[in-house]
Amino acid sequence: MSAVTPIGYMRSCFPEKFGTPRQPGLVTMATGTVALVAPYNVPEMVRGLEAYSHIWLIFRFHGCAGRPWRPTVRPPRLGGNRRIGVLATRSNFRPNAIGMSAVQLAGIRCSREGVFIAVSGIDIIDGTPVLDIKPYLPYSDCITDAAAPPAPSGSVSVTFSPPAADALAALETTGYPGLGSLLSTVLSQDPRPAYDAGRHRKKTYGMRIYDLNVRWEPTDEGIRVAGITGPAPDQRCQALPGAAVSVEF
Amino acid sequence: MSAVTPIGYMRSCFPEKFGTPRQPGLVTMATGTVALVAPYNVPEMVRGLEAYSHIWLIFRFHGCAGRPWRPTVRPPRLGGNRRIGVLATRSNFRPNAIGMSAVQLAGIRCSREGVFIAVSGIDIIDGTPVLDIKPYLPYSDCITDAAAPPAPSGSVSVTFSPPAADALAALETTGYPGLGSLLSTVLSQDPRPAYDAGRHRKKTYGMRIYDLNVRWEPTDEGIRVAGITGPAPDQRCQALPGAAVSVEF
Repeated sequence: MSAVTPIGYMRSCFPEKFGTPRQPGLVTMATGTVALVAPYNVPEMVRGLEAYSHIWLIFRFHGCAGRPWRPTVRPPRLGGNRRIGVLATRSNFRPNAIGMSAVQLAGIRCSREGVFIAVSGIDIIDGTPVLDIKPYLPYSDCITDAAAPPAPSGSVSVTFSPPAADALAALETTGYPGLGSLLSTVLSQDPRPAYDAGRHRKKTYGMRIYDLNVRWEPTDEGIRVAGITGPAPDQRCQALPGAAVSVEF
Repeated sequence: MSAVTPIGYMRSCFPEKFGTPRQPGLVTMATGTVALVAPYNVPEMVRGLEAYSHIWLIFRFHGCAGRPWRPTVRPPRLGGNRRIGVLATRSNFRPNAIGMSAVQLAGIRCSREGVFIAVSGIDIIDGTPVLDIKPYLPYSDCITDAAAPPAPSGSVSVTFSPPAADALAALETTGYPGLGSLLSTVLSQDPRPAYDAGRHRKKTYGMRIYDLNVRWEPTDEGIRVAGITGPAPDQRCQALPGAAVSVEF
């Protein structure tokens, strides 16, 4: 046993696991920011990182605290009804609960407030402790001839009910630019647990994104957003996580 | 601060850092084996992993114990004379000392002795604690349009002195098959520290590979192996790390 210490924490548009993309890169407009903490929050730490278009985030699946790992899991891509070894998956519930995601580097900001690294294409929950950041090295990380079982095909059609469309239009002009596109792409991945898919068709799901609550339902054609509700304008986040960092190099 | 526990340990042909490739994949014939430890050494843990050609090894740079990280490092690829942020490099001397390498999965063996995962293309030192194994997912890990500074170009020509060639020929037929090819590729990466390159041309370097000692010298044309010495045949390793696992799926 030895100790690890977070070098920073993730601010993300995904406040909870449900709805968070299952892999990085699937939702390119999903943005977030890593805020480094002391003693790591000095500009020297990231000098030269701007030369890379993508970086690795190594993090701890903190949402899994208290839930022990098991030797086998039932991954969603297999329909949730086949057990395979946890080391043959990217499941959160794994020994040491270490996750890693290759994400796009959107910007770096060093100021009196600290060091902030803006990223996009994330699959990481708000508040996640980050253990390491590494540059993505194409010549060793990008293995073009790697063989693997087929990637998830899933892209379901997403529609908005009239009340949801109205709420969306209002929100997009008052602090949530691009919300419709983000929400459509997140839901097109079909966040339902595999054991739900194709069964409880009448069920309504609730999901959070930023500080908003999103209700949606599976339909015969795909997924329909029933409603989007948020805090009163004066109680909203001061700044959305993805927008908290002005992108500059 | 929170704890991590090794799920296994690396057996590798590289007993020490000097000479170990600087990134995975550079020396494809460099082989090793991860031996899982209790309670992780059960076949269920790796069920389904055989579907992947490549895997990630997440490990601890244990050779760095006692040497503290610094905000900036001088990476060899920049000639060792320019300091950049440690988070903009893959340096070992980093906060949390976590490393990750994508390697080729050569085989898996589950037996009464435990679970062994054979890999090749490694850049990992013998005895390294492994924290996690994950399948390599091309659709999220292989970013074909990632931009990065140029990869190290270096490939120097490697020759063997007559005594070294004799020793090599004898070793290749008595337990070290492929040694010449492995050694040539390792040395073609020019393992010299950047501050040495082009300076002490008369210097002789010593390097270990398996349980052998290799002496080599830079020349005007590249690198020449001066000698290879090993233990007496009856004192050799029972089995070489890479060969310890019969490859089977």
